[in-house]
Amino acid sequence: MALRHAGRRVAVFLSGCGVYDGAEIHEASAALVSITRAGAKPTIFAPNKAQMHVIDHTTGNEMKEERNVLLESARIARGDVKPMAEFAADQFDALIVPGGFGAAKNLCDFAVKGADCTVDSEVEAAVRSFHDTKKPMGFCCIAPVIPAKLFKGKVTVGLEEGDDWPYAGTAEAIRTMGATHEPHDLSSVCVDDGNNIVTSAAFMCNAPFHQIHDNVAAMVNTTLDRIKA
Amino acid sequence: MALRHAGRRVAVFLSGCGVYDGAEIHEASAALVSITRAGAKPTIFAPNKAQMHVIDHTTGNEMKEERNVLLESARIARGDVKPMAEFAADQFDALIVPGGFGAAKNLCDFAVKGADCTVDSEVEAAVRSFHDTKKPMGFCCIAPVIPAKLFKGKVTVGLEEGDDWPYAGTAEAIRTMGATHEPHDLSSVCVDDGNNIVTSAAFMCNAPFHQIHDNVAAMVNTTLDRIKA
Repeated sequence: MALRHAGRRVAVFLSGCGVYDGAEIHEASAALVSITRAGAKPTIFAPNKAQMHVIDHTTGNEMKEERNVLLESARIARGDVKPMAEFAADQFDALIVPGGFGAAKNLCDFAVKGADCTVDSEVEAAVRSFHDTKKPMGFCCIAPVIPAKLFKGKVTVGLEEGDDWPYAGTAEAIRTMGATHEPHDLSSVCVDDGNNIVTSAAFMCNAPFHQIHDNVAAMVNTTLDRIKA
Repeated sequence: MALRHAGRRVAVFLSGCGVYDGAEIHEASAALVSITRAGAKPTIFAPNKAQMHVIDHTTGNEMKEERNVLLESARIARGDVKPMAEFAADQFDALIVPGGFGAAKNLCDFAVKGADCTVDSEVEAAVRSFHDTKKPMGFCCIAPVIPAKLFKGKVTVGLEEGDDWPYAGTAEAIRTMGATHEPHDLSSVCVDDGNNIVTSAAFMCNAPFHQIHDNVAAMVNTTLDRIKA
């Protein structure tokens, strides 16, 4: 398995640091672990702008302070993060977007607008330019709402009912946006061949950390395996 | 492998969220993934106090703001974190402490005092009470300075020379504290039988994410395997 994607360059878009206002930390870490385990090299990007919210993660309440998406993403990136504006599609073989509410607050505004959301202009330009190259992209958790909005293809955000799926209403919003929702539990990923987009549910499901890690790894590996030789 | 430690209760001490002023995110995630993969249940604790520093992770410079160790740890814990003062040694079968500068700034003050450091009073009480039970503890990265200071046993913080080991001077400080340093690269862990303490280098080494993940997993698994039946 190791080095099967040696030399491949993978862009990772982060949206802050922490599930309720930024990138989901365990999904982001699982993505980076999976990328280097495959022998590929991750390059991390984030929008250089204020977060929509700063959330006290012990209470879920908003805190009266401001934080910058790029600076907080740097906590996951260990400092090595570039502004989204510097992303160039021709520099990468694949693109990965972990979830967390940051994907729905800072990369787009789905968290407050639902199906009427708009995608951050820099993120939209980056994702559309990569889509134009027909190279593979992978999204997990709530991040699949971004390609659902932009390309109206087929994505998953998990199962549509069940106690372990608290955000199941997201599937309906995806249909309202004109996309197709394909239910997948954590044991599989959704592949949209036409758009070359892989999606998986990750922490849309209340599940133990290792099940999330393995679901994100499957999403990343399926995405990397779609890189053309 | 799965469920070999089913029902075991593992305390995890976090020190914030981000390598330069808090818990190292990937080490913390790897520890939690490894704990649930083994079938055990993690319970996360952090000191309810201000961080020593808030660091801009893109520059390494201090930021003029205050953050609370417990609230920032909650980002990794997805909200489910308890104050260190509530830790009770008899409630757990093992204790795990990931690294990051937070372990050397918020759990003790090694980052500024070196060998003359003191351990946070709540953390010291918690670790000493767990040590008294003779149940196993695991520490990685810079966190092994805590048991080195308290118990003067045998620990590793990695190799003592080499370009990939920027913090190699830490080994000398460990000896100054009266403990023994045993060099280990990322392929092995250090076991102090007498103190029942397992340590590993993790991000003391500049290495790809998956190598860190696997080194932390080895530290956690070795610790859990020492739980008495």
